Amino acid sequence: MNYTFSDRVNTLKPSAIREIFKYAADPEVVSLSAGNPAPDAFPKEAVAEISAKLLKENPVLALQYGLTEGYVPLRETLKKYMTEKYGVNMEGNDLIITSGAQQVMDLVTKSLVNEGDVVITEAPSFIGSLNTFRSYNAKLVGVPMDDDGMNMEELEKALKENENIRFIYTIPNFQNPSGITMSLEKRKKMYELAKQYGVLILEDNPYGELRYKGEDLPNIKSFDTDGIVIYAGSFSKVISPGMRVGWCVAPAEIIQKMVVCKQGEDVHTNMWSQVVCNEFMTKYDFDAHLEMLRKLYSEKLEYTMTLLKENLSDKITYGEVEGGLFIWCTLPEDVDMNAFCLELVKNKVCVVPGNAFLTDEKEISHNFRINFSTPSNQQLKKGIEILGRVSKTL
Amino acid sequence: MNYTFSDRVNTLKPSAIREIFKYAADPEVVSLSAGNPAPDAFPKEAVAEISAKLLKENPVLALQYGLTEGYVPLRETLKKYMTEKYGVNMEGNDLIITSGAQQVMDLVTKSLVNEGDVVITEAPSFIGSLNTFRSYNAKLVGVPMDDDGMNMEELEKALKENENIRFIYTIPNFQNPSGITMSLEKRKKMYELAKQYGVLILEDNPYGELRYKGEDLPNIKSFDTDGIVIYAGSFSKVISPGMRVGWCVAPAEIIQKMVVCKQGEDVHTNMWSQVVCNEFMTKYDFDAHLEMLRKLYSEKLEYTMTLLKENLSDKITYGEVEGGLFIWCTLPEDVDMNAFCLELVKNKVCVVPGNAFLTDEKEISHNFRINFSTPSNQQLKKGIEILGRVSKTL
Repeated sequence: MNYTFSDRVNTLKPSAIREIFKYAADPEVVSLSAGNPAPDAFPKEAVAEISAKLLKENPVLALQYGLTEGYVPLRETLKKYMTEKYGVNMEGNDLIITSGAQQVMDLVTKSLVNEGDVVITEAPSFIGSLNTFRSYNAKLVGVPMDDDGMNMEELEKALKENENIRFIYTIPNFQNPSGITMSLEKRKKMYELAKQYGVLILEDNPYGELRYKGEDLPNIKSFDTDGIVIYAGSFSKVISPGMRVGWCVAPAEIIQKMVVCKQGEDVHTNMWSQVVCNEFMTKYDFDAHLEMLRKLYSEKLEYTMTLLKENLSDKITYGEVEGGLFIWCTLPEDVDMNAFCLELVKNKVCVVPGNAFLTDEKEISHNFRINFSTPSNQQLKKGIEILGRVSKTL
Repeated sequence: MNYTFSDRVNTLKPSAIREIFKYAADPEVVSLSAGNPAPDAFPKEAVAEISAKLLKENPVLALQYGLTEGYVPLRETLKKYMTEKYGVNMEGNDLIITSGAQQVMDLVTKSLVNEGDVVITEAPSFIGSLNTFRSYNAKLVGVPMDDDGMNMEELEKALKENENIRFIYTIPNFQNPSGITMSLEKRKKMYELAKQYGVLILEDNPYGELRYKGEDLPNIKSFDTDGIVIYAGSFSKVISPGMRVGWCVAPAEIIQKMVVCKQGEDVHTNMWSQVVCNEFMTKYDFDAHLEMLRKLYSEKLEYTMTLLKENLSDKITYGEVEGGLFIWCTLPEDVDMNAFCLELVKNKVCVVPGNAFLTDEKEISHNFRINFSTPSNQQLKKGIEILGRVSKTL
């Protein structure tokens, strides 16, 4: 049988970086290419306690069907959290619990984007979100980044030059993959431009709680008096990704459409994990847990930075990292980045080549991404020593 | 701000039956309109035990990211189950774990259906699946049912008359809402027709384990030597719907596309629930649990049938039920079914009007659906007594 697939999946071509990841399956390869939390980052005892209590006292709550919008107490907890911690005015907005923030990308695109409509993204940007937009046949327009976020002249140019733009996708804090945090000035400017051009903003904030240095900046959603910002939150980096729980705050009319789409996608999010997240946020010291995470990761970051300084050729440059899970490295323009990454993996260390994060993978990139949260310190040492050796052959 | 939504969600109109369900929110209303497992149906102690062990001995497995294809041991268990219990030859096929069988409907449609392509369904059929197909702007073509499944002449007519048909959607066992089971002869005929017209079959089997009388019939997937059947399985009715775990067996090439789509939808299914399902299937007596469920539901069914016989006007007819969770009732042709259902809910009992299950809700239906798994026996008694009183005013 010859299968005919939909146009939307036919555009999802096998990734150009797949060859590199094939080598990475070798257990001897040190992977600096993941984005997983450290195994020590999970609140294991609390989850076990909450789970035991729930399954003893109220098992039917965990096992029966739930509401598509999400578990009501968790929705209330998060509404309060968004207001008190992030200064988001919930009036006119609503909140849906999703199966990870990835599902926010999916439901927003499904609700808003016709095939051929435009989504503006940072270039580079998170590959998972780009693929979701692609899976609805959105046309991706990438806007280059400066050290303090999207280049605003280029953004305005993109807004002027394209038709049927549905939203601007941004990760304002410790962006994946670049690590860049958008300045307050640019956050305000992006909001003004979106308003002026009648375009929505999809603000994705998985790493916001993971700041190790400097001051927190307000989310774009906190300026949103015009109902133009859709905010995606996630428990994946602060409680557990295996639970698959995220949320979205957006104008109520948009949430209503997302609920209809979610009903047809997975009915509702796993109930056990929604209860666990709510109990952990309300009955445990969530702030102390976040503080523990920041300490854990900032120590790993410092260790990684020391290793990079000790080992890497001067030809590879990278900026200071204030938060998140990634270090974005730049190669000289005359170096073939893909060949370099392939050489690394043959030497048993794996990083992610920068073109994976571009709206068109075939574009040239001079970057690669290192993750420091997943590997053990021993693996970091081994991996970066190899990276250092290979970098010195440049 | 005036929001512009995608064409696909604009076609998802508010349901005509919404007015009836508005009344059903009243806690005094007895709901015979759900499809939830009975609270006694959950293997509560086993889930608590498995969960405690998992979160003590291997919490990182439950909390860390997993594979998009699903938890490997559960995939292996289900492959074996499909082969040994259902006679499915896995050669050329593959298996993906999904966030409930609802996600199978979504991923299959996303992978195979372009906007405007045709999906043939039983008429009536499960509203959740119809809405998923609608959400990708599929054109639905409903084929009427006889007492032993789809009318095969009408199916062949639909196959002849339509272009770009992507698949035939069927629930062969104890169909929702009609309760009808497709005969072996029709299963074979449907397979032959699909093969002849080069169309796939999407076989949805959430109730297959819940047979209370008669003999099990082979799944259509067990005949599939041509790679044309996609099978959807679910734990929702046999372990727990709150866990959101289902699976799909299909030709490997189709599963591969579904994996890419799932990656962009929710990355992977909740890990805790995948491990719990696998441990329950392999280390507990799953067959004894299924036997307990069949006993529980067949007793509830018998009780409901007795109540219906004692209370209902002769004008309402219904067939014998051999399995599943629903009873499909028929009104005389001169009765306005929607007005009858509205009258019921005003008298504080809620059923689902038959037009909710049609490909075009505005078509006339003379049926309504009763569920007997969710209400307590006390609620069944109260609800059916009201139903009886109202039926006698016809």
